[in-house]
Amino acid sequence: MPLGACSDPHKKIKLTLSYDGTRYQGWQRQRSAPTVQQVLEEKIGLMTRERVKVTGSGRTDAGVHALGQVCHFTTSSRIPLQAFKKGLNSLLPPDILIRRAESPPPDFHAQFSAASKTYEYRILNTPDPDVFLRNYVWHMPRPLDAGAMRPCLQALVGRHDFSSFRSSGGSAVSPVRTMLRAVLETDDRGLVRLVFEADGFLRHMVRNIVGTVVGVGLGKVSRERFLEIFEAGDRREAGIKAPPGGLFLMSVSYPGQGSNSPD
Amino acid sequence: MPLGACSDPHKKIKLTLSYDGTRYQGWQRQRSAPTVQQVLEEKIGLMTRERVKVTGSGRTDAGVHALGQVCHFTTSSRIPLQAFKKGLNSLLPPDILIRRAESPPPDFHAQFSAASKTYEYRILNTPDPDVFLRNYVWHMPRPLDAGAMRPCLQALVGRHDFSSFRSSGGSAVSPVRTMLRAVLETDDRGLVRLVFEADGFLRHMVRNIVGTVVGVGLGKVSRERFLEIFEAGDRREAGIKAPPGGLFLMSVSYPGQGSNSPD
Repeated sequence: MPLGACSDPHKKIKLTLSYDGTRYQGWQRQRSAPTVQQVLEEKIGLMTRERVKVTGSGRTDAGVHALGQVCHFTTSSRIPLQAFKKGLNSLLPPDILIRRAESPPPDFHAQFSAASKTYEYRILNTPDPDVFLRNYVWHMPRPLDAGAMRPCLQALVGRHDFSSFRSSGGSAVSPVRTMLRAVLETDDRGLVRLVFEADGFLRHMVRNIVGTVVGVGLGKVSRERFLEIFEAGDRREAGIKAPPGGLFLMSVSYPGQGSNSPD
Repeated sequence: MPLGACSDPHKKIKLTLSYDGTRYQGWQRQRSAPTVQQVLEEKIGLMTRERVKVTGSGRTDAGVHALGQVCHFTTSSRIPLQAFKKGLNSLLPPDILIRRAESPPPDFHAQFSAASKTYEYRILNTPDPDVFLRNYVWHMPRPLDAGAMRPCLQALVGRHDFSSFRSSGGSAVSPVRTMLRAVLETDDRGLVRLVFEADGFLRHMVRNIVGTVVGVGLGKVSRERFLEIFEAGDRREAGIKAPPGGLFLMSVSYPGQGSNSPD
């Protein structure tokens, strides 16, 4: 790194990006495997000729996708703000796309300023799978009972201890989160979308919730049992963890800045 | 090959399949590169313990997709018809899917019995590309004038010499084809679909038509010029060839059997 390249890193830039997570070992930089953060830092480094550290709103796991991930970094480069979007998109592989580059308030922090995040989990509930969606849905050939699943989701709304749906290894201290929205939408092509908005998510929380609530949709777990599992506060009670490919980080919202939801 | 394995290959099976063409060098068996036909013949061979030759309704190029490709093969295996769908799908990679296995009339031939084929070409006409559609659309950031493109497509309908939109190297003798339908549909997400149904297609015909009609949509080529190009019967007059990823073989229809369009 050239001496002084990071001496005055006072310009903060906020990026909103989408990525197809199929090829990546998740968001967070790792030693051996390619991650989105790593690719992004490398390309920003090429543009700014600085060694840049990118801070995301949070991690996404291997194979998980994003339509509206948010990150920030600081730079002393004089490259104009809008050139970052175009410049980075010309350098990035086609499975990562910068959707917006903005100049946030000075105290903005992609992780700590976030008020809420929205995740969507997509299930393809049709007899046959779809070759074009194979990396973007959980294919479920047996019919799901949406009417049985909806009250379970509704029960998650509010301030709760989500320990039952937390995988070990997360960094959060408290298992208490506020679920703002948990809804299920279906369409006429058999796509079932489970949308979750919360002030924060524990490790694998959405995938653990989806895996368990799908048990209800298949008639394997009663609604009462689901509530017992939720209240037990014990991960061992919950169902399987849904596979990563169906999960999308849709948006991150910041106070006073609205949501960065895609269009 | 075991002696006698192909001695009585009298049972004919018709398959309807979809595939994501991204990973393949097209449909047709090649010496060095993986093709859909090759993978299919290998897996049918594993099931039937015969060396099987699969005949498709026609080729698709490298990177071109199918929702409703049709093929047939003959076998002396006693495996019941419906076991072929399930069995093959358990052996095939997740980017190839058997959608139907049927017992066609004895004289059925996937290529020669076809009455018409329908192709769809998908353009994403939005300022930004979409990471999830990168292999399935031609991204076109500048706005297309659908109203200028539609009459050009309409002019293709009927019995015509399509030499202007034919690439060299095709095997067809006559350049005359009957276009039954050529329409353009748009949706509110910027997806532009150009749908073509004809009794047959020349080599790269859809992609050459799309490349040229996009010139009209961008205001680079007038409608009059498009018609001149069409009537010239000279490929060198036409526009660029649209990239393969946007092209889908939607269905093949056979007399008295209707179309095999996807649902």
